[in-house]
Amino acid sequence: MLEEVVDLAAVTVLAVLEQAYFSLQVIYARRKYSVSPPTTTGPPEFERIFRAQANCVEYFPIFITILWTSGVFFSHGLSSVCGLLYLYGRLLYFRGYSQSSQGRLAPLYFSAQVLWVLIGFSSLGVFLSFCRVYLNVDLLQQLSCALGLV
Amino acid sequence: MLEEVVDLAAVTVLAVLEQAYFSLQVIYARRKYSVSPPTTTGPPEFERIFRAQANCVEYFPIFITILWTSGVFFSHGLSSVCGLLYLYGRLLYFRGYSQSSQGRLAPLYFSAQVLWVLIGFSSLGVFLSFCRVYLNVDLLQQLSCALGLV
Amino acid sequence: MLEEVVDLAAVTVLAVLEQAYFSLQVIYARRKYSVSPPTTTGPPEFERIFRAQANCVEYFPIFITILWTSGVFFSHGLSSVCGLLYLYGRLLYFRGYSQSSQGRLAPLYFSAQVLWVLIGFSSLGVFLSFCRVYLNVDLLQQLSCALGLV
Repeated sequence: MLEEVVDLAAVTVLAVLEQAYFSLQVIYARRKYSVSPPTTTGPPEFERIFRAQANCVEYFPIFITILWTSGVFFSHGLSSVCGLLYLYGRLLYFRGYSQSSQGRLAPLYFSAQVLWVLIGFSSLGVFLSFCRVYLNVDLLQQLSCALGLV
Repeated sequence: MLEEVVDLAAVTVLAVLEQAYFSLQVIYARRKYSVSPPTTTGPPEFERIFRAQANCVEYFPIFITILWTSGVFFSHGLSSVCGLLYLYGRLLYFRGYSQSSQGRLAPLYFSAQVLWVLIGFSSLGVFLSFCRVYLNVDLLQQLSCALGLV
Repeated sequence: MLEEVVDLAAVTVLAVLEQAYFSLQVIYARRKYSVSPPTTTGPPEFERIFRAQANCVEYFPIFITILWTSGVFFSHGLSSVCGLLYLYGRLLYFRGYSQSSQGRLAPLYFSAQVLWVLIGFSSLGVFLSFCRVYLNVDLLQQLSCALGLV
């Protein structure tokens, strides 16, 4: 079981490292633009970096939750690939938003789409398991039979 | 093992979908009240929706964590029912807060109470497992014996 | 399997209780300094408590994620001890920040260091599992052989 999800665990560690990188950028921006805690407002350059990190923080638990649900109930390989794409999208988002409000949009849409794919995988995987456990119906097998594959 | 927790996974997917719905409401509110990122302040109507979503985001990881701890170490059925109640409470909270500051209170108390029930389940489940593993004492069985049930 | 991670589950329940404590402090501070939701700005005393809790909330999912990755793929005992240290550091951080902006620094650095230790454990554990599963190489065993321990 554990061996099967080592790819999900690797994506998880990468996600944590990415969050650590974003947090460090906010600390550097606080120093550069002289915005001491607890203040969270300042020049637009600082506020964009602050909000970029806040937005990534906000989506981190949703991403981890859906990555593992999708990985465990649907496919750990496909979910890990989506996970890597999401993390790459988030990196582009952070860099884009740091430069301009406009620059955040394209990578934000991209990472949102990847998240929807993971939500789709999770829903499908959980739905199929649900049918198997509670209705005693194996939809995948029935589909194979109906298509004459088995 | 996986089959046993498919109900927790279903609640988890619902929770993610609910968060996605709240996020979309903030995007609509940003358009409606013309509050462009990175700004997070504006008319009270916007700020209430923004804070409602921020509060739900804040509690999302706590909810998921305690849902699974309670589900795995105490009872997955009871925890899933509590999970559904919590998500329903959060929906009422979001709608109530969108309308008025006062409107958030009743559903906020309700969802907090459900969370405390889940925390109670988790604590009890983990405590009993702890006694079994580290003290080699099965409290549930001893209780049954003491009550003459076994 | 479940029996092995009961210490991680105990740390998790403690972490949730600590977050509940921080949330209650914000509610008390809102009453004390008359800052009604959705407002999040006010006297510096209130803003420090608000930001202290927001910062702990921000790190909660990262902490839980890395605690379990490290606990499952490296060592549940060592990870639980680190988890307890982290939670203690966060308590000192919250209390320090409530009193002064300066007071948050030492415990913040301490809890960040503990988090880096957990990230190191996770990375190492996942890397070793990765080599075993995908490259069919057991680095730990090879190391033992090289050192003449086996």
